[in-house]
Amino acid sequence: MFSSRTLAMTAVCQTRVPRNANMEKLQNGYLFPEIAMRQQAFMKRHPEAELISLGVGDTTQPIPRVVTAAMAETCHALSTSEGYRGYGAEQGNEELRKRIAEVIYEDMGIKQTDVFVSDGAQCDISRIQMMMGSNVTVAVQDPTFPAYVDSGVIMGQSTSFKKETGAYGRIEYMRCSPENLFFPDLSATPRTDLIFFCSPNNPTGHAASRAQLEQLVSFAKSNGSIIIYDSAYASFISDSSPKSIYEVPGAKEVAIEVSSFSKFAGFAGVRLGWTVIPEELTFSDGSSVGRDFDRIMCTCFNGASSIAQAGGMACLSPQGLKAMKKVINGYKGNAMMLGEAFASAGLEAYGGRNSPYVWVHFPGRRSWDVFGEILEKANVVTIPGTGFGPGGEGFVRVSGFGRREAVQEACRRLRRLFGRRSVVVRKRDYSVGATEDAAAASAPVLLPRI
Amino acid sequence: MFSSRTLAMTAVCQTRVPRNANMEKLQNGYLFPEIAMRQQAFMKRHPEAELISLGVGDTTQPIPRVVTAAMAETCHALSTSEGYRGYGAEQGNEELRKRIAEVIYEDMGIKQTDVFVSDGAQCDISRIQMMMGSNVTVAVQDPTFPAYVDSGVIMGQSTSFKKETGAYGRIEYMRCSPENLFFPDLSATPRTDLIFFCSPNNPTGHAASRAQLEQLVSFAKSNGSIIIYDSAYASFISDSSPKSIYEVPGAKEVAIEVSSFSKFAGFAGVRLGWTVIPEELTFSDGSSVGRDFDRIMCTCFNGASSIAQAGGMACLSPQGLKAMKKVINGYKGNAMMLGEAFASAGLEAYGGRNSPYVWVHFPGRRSWDVFGEILEKANVVTIPGTGFGPGGEGFVRVSGFGRREAVQEACRRLRRLFGRRSVVVRKRDYSVGATEDAAAASAPVLLPRI
Repeated sequence: MFSSRTLAMTAVCQTRVPRNANMEKLQNGYLFPEIAMRQQAFMKRHPEAELISLGVGDTTQPIPRVVTAAMAETCHALSTSEGYRGYGAEQGNEELRKRIAEVIYEDMGIKQTDVFVSDGAQCDISRIQMMMGSNVTVAVQDPTFPAYVDSGVIMGQSTSFKKETGAYGRIEYMRCSPENLFFPDLSATPRTDLIFFCSPNNPTGHAASRAQLEQLVSFAKSNGSIIIYDSAYASFISDSSPKSIYEVPGAKEVAIEVSSFSKFAGFAGVRLGWTVIPEELTFSDGSSVGRDFDRIMCTCFNGASSIAQAGGMACLSPQGLKAMKKVINGYKGNAMMLGEAFASAGLEAYGGRNSPYVWVHFPGRRSWDVFGEILEKANVVTIPGTGFGPGGEGFVRVSGFGRREAVQEACRRLRRLFGRRSVVVRKRDYSVGATEDAAAASAPVLLPRI
Repeated sequence: MFSSRTLAMTAVCQTRVPRNANMEKLQNGYLFPEIAMRQQAFMKRHPEAELISLGVGDTTQPIPRVVTAAMAETCHALSTSEGYRGYGAEQGNEELRKRIAEVIYEDMGIKQTDVFVSDGAQCDISRIQMMMGSNVTVAVQDPTFPAYVDSGVIMGQSTSFKKETGAYGRIEYMRCSPENLFFPDLSATPRTDLIFFCSPNNPTGHAASRAQLEQLVSFAKSNGSIIIYDSAYASFISDSSPKSIYEVPGAKEVAIEVSSFSKFAGFAGVRLGWTVIPEELTFSDGSSVGRDFDRIMCTCFNGASSIAQAGGMACLSPQGLKAMKKVINGYKGNAMMLGEAFASAGLEAYGGRNSPYVWVHFPGRRSWDVFGEILEKANVVTIPGTGFGPGGEGFVRVSGFGRREAVQEACRRLRRLFGRRSVVVRKRDYSVGATEDAAAASAPVLLPRI
């Protein structure tokens, strides 16, 4: 009797506002909060453990002084009559738009007015999705950064999630694996309106080659699709892979580029990013995509923080660029060490060379199990590959964004955990009780593609 | 022949991606960019003119040093190993959420976890709309801040715009005018899922009284609606009007509150705001509204700038609050002066007392015409009332956010432009050639409700 009364009271308090059916479709927590939760649960059980996080791609190195000094100066100026500024342009300060166009897109024909400054790539992705609406079809790399799919689900671009496949309906998952050099088989990919493409990819660490991107642009052209190219990790590219989709001729008519200062300049907490929408890009009715995005920025956004923008200007000065490069090289050094630690244990490790991420294969195992094993036995936090799509099953992602000493210690622990296998499991052992683990360990000891 | 070839080439360049039909519904430019455009056009014609802007509600007073010093310190700390932080929590730093709950919502039972820190109220409004989706019905005050309607149109909550009425279909416009003390006739208002309510209202400057807000909450309760209460101007309230919807008992079960540091602390360019979603608030299926918003913040946002958040903490210190109050009183002094300038010319001016805005009535005239006249003849930028909805016809909004000397000069010009009427047009003139202008001038010389 008591419980029915409680129920009745609860019912009285409820509103009659229907929950958004698209929100209901979303699975579980969003990846990173989910990992944080499991990590906290582990710490509760093992308060003595010294966890090392190679999980969330979170920067750890101080921001060079040339940048923070410029930001601090802007703060102080806000307390003076001459230096105070209220709202800035919703699209970003003119001089920063200009500098991004000139420094990042040198010789690519990107105009200042094509650049929209924002509070970060992830935020821009959801604003682009809001602009596109529910009536578009979408393709994503599989695995990939989850925000493309999740924001699309929220906007109603998908049907419901299928447990069997680990995928949402109506979204095209383009498998990217070692077998296809992390580039989708476009001949087998149906046309979609939008193609989200992240390079260097998060999580696989693969930077698409020029030939691959030419294929992608030509595919988009012949299908009349729009590529939404995420270059948030472009500054990590060491080889000749393009750093922008606009290095490919003709891309301006088919591609939006989203990017960020988060990984490039340690701005994860400062919040600064940008989106390029070339004037040449139009919808099927010939109307300008950039004009609609401008409207979204004016209606749903109000400009990036003036302080962060001052920091962005300093990042793109010659002195700033030099300082950033040093930081990025440090992270890449970490990623190389991690890749070697896994490879020396006979595991296939990808990424690292053009990316802060290393993508490690555990064939035949479930990635949440591997995540759990590494957490329990090495007290190291990784990211289970399935968090990035069904194509991530059997992989975990580790990040080189940690501090050097922490990464070194993580490498020692990982060698201890997995290393024995490369010793114990030798060729003559293959037929003897080849468990899943042994099978994993018996993978050819490849030189890591890092 | 040449032109058909050009046409064919253009066609080749177009993508086949359909433009979002909801974006197509949006009328003209968004209000503020539209005004900026007209202002620029005027300046091109009159490069010698010394324009004074009482238009966009943009802050002009320096931020107190106690706040900028805290922000600058955070900037410098980002260059040290100990002080560096990457990503913060998507919902905001714990200590800031706590301080907002304690300082702004003292004794209202708002918990730290109910508070989501963001980059501004306007951004939160569009995130709330994204969470709500297209399948909800919406009511707004008329006139009101355009972002509620525009973000709803983008999300597909409306049908198309009707030129005849100046309104979008499927959106309920609740008329707020001097006649109903700027509070809608709820007995004649149909049920909607969401009710956007801004108090102190932008543009009318009216702060809803306690009795009015009790009516509103009871209306929402009986209809099972959710109020989205915008309190961005709450710090301007001088009388006993509630500063938060949560001062009304029972509001936690029916209301979200969106607010901002922009006008409260001069953070228009720094970017910081917050949204409160009480744990008690649920959708019709009993699920938590706050949980869905949390998911939106994690997927579509990535936390407010850590530097801005440090500034927010300083604003809410005793020293910060005291400094802010002084700045706000300065703006309110400006608004009072402006209200008096119009009132002395025999015009009805509202607002000012609890708001930085003054809302001036020009009965029988079109607001874009009045805007144009004031721009051309006094070189002062105002905002035409229709920019805030059809109910704004015949009004213009002026803002007290200018610098004191500029506001004083604007008052002189406005008295020069309109003042003569209160001299020229006397009672005995009423029957003599009563033009529209004269009719406006003959309105009773009210003491301004400022």
